[in-house]
Amino acid sequence: MSKSIITDNFLLENKYAEELYHTYAKNQPIIDYHNHLPPQQIAEDKIFNNLTNVWIRGDHYKWRAMRTLGIDEKFITGIATDEEKFMHWAKTVPYTMRNPLYHWTHLELARYFDIFEPLNEKTATHIYAETSEKLSSQEYSCRNLLKKANAEVICTTEDPTDTLNHHKDISGSDFSVKVSTAFRPDKAILILSEGYNDYIDALGKSAEIEISSFNDLCDALGKRIDYFHKNGCRLCDHGLDKISFEDFTESQVATIFKKKRSGGTVTTEDAAKFESAILLFLSEMYHTKGWVQQFHLGALRNNNARMHKILGPDTGWDSIGDYSQAQKLSAFLNTLDSKDKLTKTILYNLNPADNEVMATMAGNFNDGSVKGKVQFGSGWWFLDQKDGMTKQLNALSNMGLISCFIGMLTDSRSFMSFPRHEYFRRILCNLFGEEIKKGELPDDMEWIGKLISDISYNNAKEYFDF
Amino acid sequence: MSKSIITDNFLLENKYAEELYHTYAKNQPIIDYHNHLPPQQIAEDKIFNNLTNVWIRGDHYKWRAMRTLGIDEKFITGIATDEEKFMHWAKTVPYTMRNPLYHWTHLELARYFDIFEPLNEKTATHIYAETSEKLSSQEYSCRNLLKKANAEVICTTEDPTDTLNHHKDISGSDFSVKVSTAFRPDKAILILSEGYNDYIDALGKSAEIEISSFNDLCDALGKRIDYFHKNGCRLCDHGLDKISFEDFTESQVATIFKKKRSGGTVTTEDAAKFESAILLFLSEMYHTKGWVQQFHLGALRNNNARMHKILGPDTGWDSIGDYSQAQKLSAFLNTLDSKDKLTKTILYNLNPADNEVMATMAGNFNDGSVKGKVQFGSGWWFLDQKDGMTKQLNALSNMGLISCFIGMLTDSRSFMSFPRHEYFRRILCNLFGEEIKKGELPDDMEWIGKLISDISYNNAKEYFDF
Amino acid sequence: MSKSIITDNFLLENKYAEELYHTYAKNQPIIDYHNHLPPQQIAEDKIFNNLTNVWIRGDHYKWRAMRTLGIDEKFITGIATDEEKFMHWAKTVPYTMRNPLYHWTHLELARYFDIFEPLNEKTATHIYAETSEKLSSQEYSCRNLLKKANAEVICTTEDPTDTLNHHKDISGSDFSVKVSTAFRPDKAILILSEGYNDYIDALGKSAEIEISSFNDLCDALGKRIDYFHKNGCRLCDHGLDKISFEDFTESQVATIFKKKRSGGTVTTEDAAKFESAILLFLSEMYHTKGWVQQFHLGALRNNNARMHKILGPDTGWDSIGDYSQAQKLSAFLNTLDSKDKLTKTILYNLNPADNEVMATMAGNFNDGSVKGKVQFGSGWWFLDQKDGMTKQLNALSNMGLISCFIGMLTDSRSFMSFPRHEYFRRILCNLFGEEIKKGELPDDMEWIGKLISDISYNNAKEYFDF
Repeated sequence: MSKSIITDNFLLENKYAEELYHTYAKNQPIIDYHNHLPPQQIAEDKIFNNLTNVWIRGDHYKWRAMRTLGIDEKFITGIATDEEKFMHWAKTVPYTMRNPLYHWTHLELARYFDIFEPLNEKTATHIYAETSEKLSSQEYSCRNLLKKANAEVICTTEDPTDTLNHHKDISGSDFSVKVSTAFRPDKAILILSEGYNDYIDALGKSAEIEISSFNDLCDALGKRIDYFHKNGCRLCDHGLDKISFEDFTESQVATIFKKKRSGGTVTTEDAAKFESAILLFLSEMYHTKGWVQQFHLGALRNNNARMHKILGPDTGWDSIGDYSQAQKLSAFLNTLDSKDKLTKTILYNLNPADNEVMATMAGNFNDGSVKGKVQFGSGWWFLDQKDGMTKQLNALSNMGLISCFIGMLTDSRSFMSFPRHEYFRRILCNLFGEEIKKGELPDDMEWIGKLISDISYNNAKEYFDF
Repeated sequence: MSKSIITDNFLLENKYAEELYHTYAKNQPIIDYHNHLPPQQIAEDKIFNNLTNVWIRGDHYKWRAMRTLGIDEKFITGIATDEEKFMHWAKTVPYTMRNPLYHWTHLELARYFDIFEPLNEKTATHIYAETSEKLSSQEYSCRNLLKKANAEVICTTEDPTDTLNHHKDISGSDFSVKVSTAFRPDKAILILSEGYNDYIDALGKSAEIEISSFNDLCDALGKRIDYFHKNGCRLCDHGLDKISFEDFTESQVATIFKKKRSGGTVTTEDAAKFESAILLFLSEMYHTKGWVQQFHLGALRNNNARMHKILGPDTGWDSIGDYSQAQKLSAFLNTLDSKDKLTKTILYNLNPADNEVMATMAGNFNDGSVKGKVQFGSGWWFLDQKDGMTKQLNALSNMGLISCFIGMLTDSRSFMSFPRHEYFRRILCNLFGEEIKKGELPDDMEWIGKLISDISYNNAKEYFDF
Repeated sequence: MSKSIITDNFLLENKYAEELYHTYAKNQPIIDYHNHLPPQQIAEDKIFNNLTNVWIRGDHYKWRAMRTLGIDEKFITGIATDEEKFMHWAKTVPYTMRNPLYHWTHLELARYFDIFEPLNEKTATHIYAETSEKLSSQEYSCRNLLKKANAEVICTTEDPTDTLNHHKDISGSDFSVKVSTAFRPDKAILILSEGYNDYIDALGKSAEIEISSFNDLCDALGKRIDYFHKNGCRLCDHGLDKISFEDFTESQVATIFKKKRSGGTVTTEDAAKFESAILLFLSEMYHTKGWVQQFHLGALRNNNARMHKILGPDTGWDSIGDYSQAQKLSAFLNTLDSKDKLTKTILYNLNPADNEVMATMAGNFNDGSVKGKVQFGSGWWFLDQKDGMTKQLNALSNMGLISCFIGMLTDSRSFMSFPRHEYFRRILCNLFGEEIKKGELPDDMEWIGKLISDISYNNAKEYFDF
């Protein structure tokens, strides 16, 4: 049997990289400022019982790999038992070599369970038994998994209609990890999506406002922002294929929204006007509140209608789009900046061909008022792997200041994905270490160590007002 | 004189890479599932007599290099003698360093002729003499060149009007290499191209159907697909700048085609509707037949009108386009998938900026029904070089499963380009070998060796029904 | 204190790279065929007195970095003293690690001042004192800085209305460096830009033609081209987001221009027609004169309206666009080529995602008439760093002939940026050296040395008619 790849110096290719990681990165706490963990499970301090529950259920990365290998959906999201599903995943793992799943899998087994064996068909049975036993104990509850990961703050993502009751429960408890929320109003923005009016009704109910006009909509969103703010929210998030920024007048937007609310059909052009108006309104609100705003741009979602009908969204049928991003995004940010209403902003792109567009876009609005005010966000989703992260770190370095970078986030739905911070930090330290070794950076370990600590933790600590 | 770069361990940078290549890749037979070899030459078992005939004639890669160096067209495609042309190519070779031509050239000289000298002005004369002698012998006939390359199956590319007589001759002979065909109906699809109606007449004749309506066209293509299938065809190919997928009605398409057949002018919008309809029809047929469909997307062709007039298409005046690909391609594949009519599919892109779009697009339709059902195809044309292949292999690895990849094809017009499989395999083995060395992959040579064999040969063997 | 990174073998990772650089590249003279140096300062042989004047004033690369770090504009372009500004830049430098500014800064300190200390807050005071003393001496005048850099020819960039008086003064002096000019008529082309009519008035005055019709405009530009040619100009430059190439008729263009001149509003569609016409006119003129034409494509400029109002253009608020480039650029070049009016051309792109589009586009019009007639230009602006240059060099190598490349240019506004030629040459030599070491290129140092000398100097010498 071959040795585990998860060694102390995994991904660290020289002594500089090793020193940077072990001295300046490894022990930094984690500020996971954007993820999709379910707050209810934290509130309840859920116990998962087995790896299928905590690891495979809900993880569309793994599902896509299994489907590509030709595994029947029954063993992925279907009626098979937890153990059968695990066995199929274990069988898949050796086929995921060179995919980040291979590294993540073994890093997570090592960090949470001290298991350094490769997972495969042969080791599956006893690994399942061993991990099930552990996962059934209190030591492996949601909260203890987060503590084990050295998380200091995590920030989940909620719809404006969310009551935040789970967050209140958590903050009222003795849980030492701070659990914040990010406001994600996509459903209020995407006027062309199915069920929009029902959603607006729900939003109105949540805000105790009957929403018939665009002004009502703004009032309702404003009330929910106030509510989120009162409950500690300092961050929002937008998941949009692209910023559809068009000229509009208030009366046009009022008419478009009225039409939609009375059951009329909204054209693509009108939708763009509406989205521009509501996005501007929201971003100005965020500025007023001093929030950080995030834009996740460039996904092409729900490509497989047949499977979408069966499994719903976020089940592994999304891919990378190739939209034009630069001009509209620039116009949007500029409109805010011109009113002095541009709040701290993080731009994430899903198509790596846009890395340089985003890295340089950030610079257009960094005006010296705040260190790293506009950030080019960390490699996201399909780009959350060594190659993707390296490209993001290089584009950011070459076209901005990596020293001001707020670093990594998991964006994950799983309580076991926190070793991705370790993964990021190792890659980061190795990039710097390799350049020290080659003489492209000075052998000034103290200074470069400081930069590593900043990117790992201090910059995010300073940037966010959690 | 410097030593030849073509050594046993060319491109293999460590012992893992060496072991992977020499033990698991080198001796695998070749399934060259897509190329443009002329079946007539195989049927006749043509003898080429000299390197200019087999190597330079028809090779627009070499022509572009010679033109860039400032060599007169006379010595490229013009009236110069074969020997003069060879001398100019030989003079060009040292200027092609860092271009794949430099590696291909010396790999081909080594593998076919055991010549390990660098080709240049000084060595040209005796290399020409030596190779001419060999190429004039039966040992270097078409068929023997293919056998020398360890080809098991090759698949040429034919128009629907092709009689496949050469293929019949070959399959009726004792030639040990299987020679199949791929159905390439671009001329029936591109309704805006010059000579479309003449082509449709020819297609009708070939199918023994008078084509006046869209239904006639479908019938004719259907008959030709039947004919190709009966003659062993299991694969098709489409060379399109992009998928122009638009909503259409049957009556619209019928009208558009009628208009075209009666000499009317078809608008770009109408052409997109027509192309959508005919492409859907064809793809559904392929599914019925159980064929694999290929899409080669992203070329910008025939840019130089002056030279196109003189030399025709495919003579070195094509380049890489920057079309939007994702949304329409997704809609097209989804329409087929929704009808359960999506057959095995290979997506090739010419612009490497689209690598990640294609790699993730494949995942949208990998539903577990077939291992690696939708494939992100190997680096193609301008991307068929170390850097381009590496990027394709990395995108595929990070966003899909390289373990399920069906690997390399030559896409070539030349009987001497089969060492590109060797080139690919060396690059592939080196990628894995480097990661084993760095500890990013386990030192499990048996398993990784299996993956290498699969990508080199077994996966294609399993995927195609040749 | 750590040792300086600026060693003899900076960026040279093996003995082949070292030999290539030291023997074949280092001592080649510099032909800086495109920059934005102010000819007045050369004519006057300006003395800068301190580093802020020669180094920070006008350098928006440094400004962007300072703003990103959160430094107040007062200390960047504002009312702070030169020394205060320098101190803030010095403080910023350690934060620019991994950005090209870090390398450029220390390379420039080393090459111009023999300073090998890292610049930072601690060393700032005495470095400022030492450099101020030197910069106040005649030895550090403009002209002496250029001579120190081993410049043979430099080529500045002027508007058609420029009198070229400074160039005349310089050429009439005993200055040993040839100072040429490039004709840059963007302001005459961009009909939608503010102040267009005022500019056309000025152009008319400069050409002594009253410009009321499109023909007048052509006449005026033609006269200015004659004037520039007579004064030694052999090169032009166009800075366009993209080539807007549309069909037009002469009468349409005449009408559009008339409308503009009489204060009417020109639509985007009309502007594209106009720009197509004027660009064709100009390019045909360049061909007649035997000039080289340059196209700098892909910037997204003036994104920050608030700061643009305060500081004007070119002050650090530009970024990378994501326009479609391929089809229109091809159509434009093809139109010229079809008339046999395509002159030598250099294509530069700002979005590295377009590298392969540009590298292959060049090949479409390399017809053997001139060695390297159409060039894929060196990494530009945001791409003028190790990663960006490497990608450009690799795309060019893989899709064209790097052996025919005319190499580096500074594109700079600063008299101290000539070490970027050294930076480029080191990177270039290292690329070749690494491949020799790996056995991907032969150990033929004489031949590869020749290629290095060609790319560093000889190719540009041959290509340009300075």
